[in-house]
Order: sequence, then C-alpha cells, then structure tokens
Amino acid sequence: MDTFLLHRRLAEDTALALELPLCSVLLMDDATVPWLILVPRRSGVREIHELERVDRLILMEELALASKVACKLYSPDKLNVGALGNIVEQLHIHVVSRFKADRAWPGPVWGADGASAYAGEGLAAEAARVRKAFEDVLKGA
Amino acid sequence: MDTFLLHRRLAEDTALALELPLCSVLLMDDATVPWLILVPRRSGVREIHELERVDRLILMEELALASKVACKLYSPDKLNVGALGNIVEQLHIHVVSRFKADRAWPGPVWGADGASAYAGEGLAAEAARVRKAFEDVLKGA
Repeated sequence: MDTFLLHRRLAEDTALALELPLCSVLLMDDATVPWLILVPRRSGVREIHELERVDRLILMEELALASKVACKLYSPDKLNVGALGNIVEQLHIHVVSRFKADRAWPGPVWGADGASAYAGEGLAAEAARVRKAFEDVLKGA
Repeated sequence: MDTFLLHRRLAEDTALALELPLCSVLLMDDATVPWLILVPRRSGVREIHELERVDRLILMEELALASKVACKLYSPDKLNVGALGNIVEQLHIHVVSRFKADRAWPGPVWGADGASAYAGEGLAAEAARVRKAFEDVLKGA
C-alpha cells in the first residue's frame, strides 16, 4: 500500500479541486494567475522519469486534460507547464495560465514577485469552478 | 507531409545533439547549466495538449529518456522540466540539470541572469557527448 501524503507546503498553499485517477489537482492560492498543480499520488517520487511507465502515460493524459480545462476556463495567451521542485521536492507539475499582461510576463511565474492570495472564500469558490470545468470536459460538454 | 521547420531562435541558440523518433534533442549554448531542449517535429503546435495522443505518449517517453540521460551525464541535484513558450511559441520542452550552486538556484533558470556561451568548440563537443549518452542509455549500457 502506497501511503501517499501531500507535502505540507503544497497543502498549505493550495486548495484541492479534484482527484483524478493518478493525480490530485490543486489550485494555488494566488489570485493573480490561474495556477493548477497536479500531484501524482505516489510516495517518494521526485522526478517524472522515476514514475512507472504506466503512471507516466496516465500523467501525460491528465496533464493534457488539465491543459484543456485551463484553456476553456481562462483562455490564456500561453500555458506554462513545469516540474521544478527546487524547493518542494515531492513531484508536482504546474499548469499555469499566462497572459501578456500578467505580473511576470514574459518571464516565468515561479519565484516572481507580486503573488496575492484570494480574498475571503475566493479560493474555495475557484477550486469548485475548476472541479466543475474538469467534469464538463470529461463529459464532453 | 508535415514540413516542420525549427524556429530560428531555437536554431540559433542551440546545437543539435540527436533526432529521436518524435523530437529533436537540442543542447542550449549555455555552459553554466546543462540544458537540453526537446522539440517535437510537428508544425504549428504551441501546447502539449495540441499534439495527437500518440505523439503525447511518445513525447513522455522521450522526456523520460532525456531525463535519465541528464541524470547519468550530470548527476544534478534536481531536474527542471518545463514547456513555457512565452517568447518562442513553437512547442519545446526544457530539461535542465540544476545544481544547488548554479547561477539561479533555487529560482527558475528561464530569464535568469548569468548565461554564458560555450567557448570554442565546446558546444559541439558537449552535443556529441550528449548524443553518445543517449546511445548508451538506449543500448542499456
């Protein structure tokens, strides 16, 4: 049994939107940039290539799904997809919707100044909207 | 027929290490950070999820291969894998070997100061070494 535990830092900085077969889909608590994070529920994995092959292929399809959802919800100018982990080593993949007018364009958003948490119940509300969008895309709506 | 043309900026900033079934593997001309770039030879694609499913799955396996090669060659503290494209929209995926003492740690290397081209024939020599490492990993050496 794989006793997966989400890294404390990821848990603190995000809200859970939904669980896919492999990954938990988290919404970063940053109201300035629509920012999803996919975390494969596999313990002790730091790098994508350390996943079993079948998990890698599922991850790719869950990443593609999350990308479609982000495009549908936010119509970004560009997606930024990245697995860095210089600070939090537990494997997690960012799917960030970028805009030419956002706070870090054209640079990367990771480590850039200007993040700002959602106000009030904003984070939970947006996570619910993300969950609904996944469900709609999965239903072909 | 897909008349794929590598983006001029990518061609100028890199050397070709080798061609995999889907991706060209490029070596960035930056001697400060071992930096591979995979470019799927498909025209007009900006985002990973725009690839056909079979290409996405091949991409994942070529990314895993490139990650293994980078770990074998460079023993990085962490890989940074990312598809950004804020500046060059043609789909390309970075596989950067990061070190706790490198010029941007723990921040992302994209957009960070301090890049420095290889001297003399250094870029071509390193690209040849990368090619050899891919061949060794593919042979199971």
